[in-house]
Amino acid sequence: MIIPEIRHNLITRDWVIISSARSKRPDEFHKKLEGPEESAPDYKPDCPFCRGNEDKTPPELFRIGAGDRGWQIRVIPNKFAALSREGELHRKVEGVKRAVSGVGIHEVIIEHPLHNVTTALLDNDGVRKILLAYKTRYLEIYKDPRIQLVIIFKNHGEGAGTSLEHPHSQIIGTPVMPPHVRHRMEEAMRYYDDTGECVVCKVMETELADQERVVVDGVHFLSFVPYAALSSFHIWIFPKRHTPSFGEIQPDELEDLAGVLRTTLAQLYHGLNNPDFNYVIHSIPEVGRGTEYFHWYISIVPRLAKIAGFELGSGMFINPSLPEDNAQFLRETTVDNPLTPIPEN
Amino acid sequence: MIIPEIRHNLITRDWVIISSARSKRPDEFHKKLEGPEESAPDYKPDCPFCRGNEDKTPPELFRIGAGDRGWQIRVIPNKFAALSREGELHRKVEGVKRAVSGVGIHEVIIEHPLHNVTTALLDNDGVRKILLAYKTRYLEIYKDPRIQLVIIFKNHGEGAGTSLEHPHSQIIGTPVMPPHVRHRMEEAMRYYDDTGECVVCKVMETELADQERVVVDGVHFLSFVPYAALSSFHIWIFPKRHTPSFGEIQPDELEDLAGVLRTTLAQLYHGLNNPDFNYVIHSIPEVGRGTEYFHWYISIVPRLAKIAGFELGSGMFINPSLPEDNAQFLRETTVDNPLTPIPEN
Repeated sequence: MIIPEIRHNLITRDWVIISSARSKRPDEFHKKLEGPEESAPDYKPDCPFCRGNEDKTPPELFRIGAGDRGWQIRVIPNKFAALSREGELHRKVEGVKRAVSGVGIHEVIIEHPLHNVTTALLDNDGVRKILLAYKTRYLEIYKDPRIQLVIIFKNHGEGAGTSLEHPHSQIIGTPVMPPHVRHRMEEAMRYYDDTGECVVCKVMETELADQERVVVDGVHFLSFVPYAALSSFHIWIFPKRHTPSFGEIQPDELEDLAGVLRTTLAQLYHGLNNPDFNYVIHSIPEVGRGTEYFHWYISIVPRLAKIAGFELGSGMFINPSLPEDNAQFLRETTVDNPLTPIPEN
Repeated sequence: MIIPEIRHNLITRDWVIISSARSKRPDEFHKKLEGPEESAPDYKPDCPFCRGNEDKTPPELFRIGAGDRGWQIRVIPNKFAALSREGELHRKVEGVKRAVSGVGIHEVIIEHPLHNVTTALLDNDGVRKILLAYKTRYLEIYKDPRIQLVIIFKNHGEGAGTSLEHPHSQIIGTPVMPPHVRHRMEEAMRYYDDTGECVVCKVMETELADQERVVVDGVHFLSFVPYAALSSFHIWIFPKRHTPSFGEIQPDELEDLAGVLRTTLAQLYHGLNNPDFNYVIHSIPEVGRGTEYFHWYISIVPRLAKIAGFELGSGMFINPSLPEDNAQFLRETTVDNPLTPIPEN
């Protein structure tokens, strides 16, 4: 009888049942059908994000690349924004009915002029430009005094919650600080109070010493499957320099991150046959005295299993893979794919 | 320009963007295909949960109904248990690598002898028997000194994380207390400290006064769409009597809950064309002095949208429906469906 292990994720404070009795081979995670990228054309007349259809979107907020159709990245307001860009922040308290007005920012980053590419197939410079757009908008949105938190995220594939094929990611600036984020800050603070160290730095030190969960070890960034990965092929990318906020990333770091992120996503793409995934940048707004306990990072979550009643009820996770096996599989996945440069207009 | 509202759920402490710009009509939530119940036979030779296939499961732990094949409910150990029933609880601390042994309880409640029924189509007595099995196992599992928390849940349909059609639910007893549950207890405690009242009792008082979010108002239980419902048609069922633990439910309450739960699920079934859903019983283990701040309840989550990057990153939710509209729609859904009694052997 093999007794599984319940690992404790010291950064999220989540408990994860590493359930080897339920383990799968990597090819069992493959999608039954090929992803849309393989079969889709590089231009669709009705896609608002395709080069040539710029008039189908709200006015541009930011772009990389010159000329009417010569853009490489465009940032636009989300046409179906979850929050209203205009309006004042009001609070309502009527007994236990509490609300604030839904003002905030919701933007879309169009990552490439072509319809049928994905991050894994871009060259490093294409990914660097996406990250540069993130940084520019991140800093800009925090200037809005109504905003308490900026979340940058990508939903890739239907199972990850997107219906739009064209490669894009999103930024949302919320006027409230979610308790989920606050709890994570409090736990980091508690670790710092207890030890004088940053828990993310400490975990990274262990991962670099152990090596067995490492996916890509870059100059400035480390990509790895966490010891208590919340699900199969769950990946974290940590900046090696201790920095609380994503907004502090420097040009040489941006370039290194582009390579580490692209290689990691390419290993997922080739190893697991283009799985649906989300990624999110976890960061705090303020940088300065008293925020040294926090360290920003990227979390990549391939959507290989459904969240069910147990997870909803307990907040605990069941991971049917051994993190060490997942990391080894990704490291051994070859990614010499043909890269897609950004085409001239 | 309509500014959406961000409602604060005082019990979970979650913020929910009520996004009317993204709202859908109830028929847009319908599944594209009919559910398996309509087309499946009432017996499948290879289904381990069907009457007649009792030898395909591990030995029974509990049953309702007499005779070899005369059972109405069976409880069995999960053949692919996430936790090991045997073994001692050990803790490992190696720097930031922390774990406990994965011992605990994982059982399956087979809800009916027939393959192709679902809770919405049972009669009240059939549902009462399921709830009685829950209570019996709940109390029994807490006798195990290794167990810190018992979660009872149901996954209905593939989108809710199940691959088995035959109607069943699950119980998991974990040897750790998840932070998710602890946070909810702490928030309830804080409300009690501030006001001397139970936050669940207080919310229920408001829901009964407002009436507009009520779905089924029973003698002992209230079913309603919360003011800050986390997603479309998210429903809570509260016991009207202040009780911290599900284990305290009395026979007349069990009977009333059967009717309230069945009617609510039948309204979802008919109104939304048999949606995939999860339900979970939120309860705390101990009852006694010092636990008066907590109040157990059931949460029903129809799986009508995908959890995406924003939710993963922020823990915030975007609900594209107005809770008041959802409740009205369910109240107005007729449920005079033919009920399936438990057949004689």
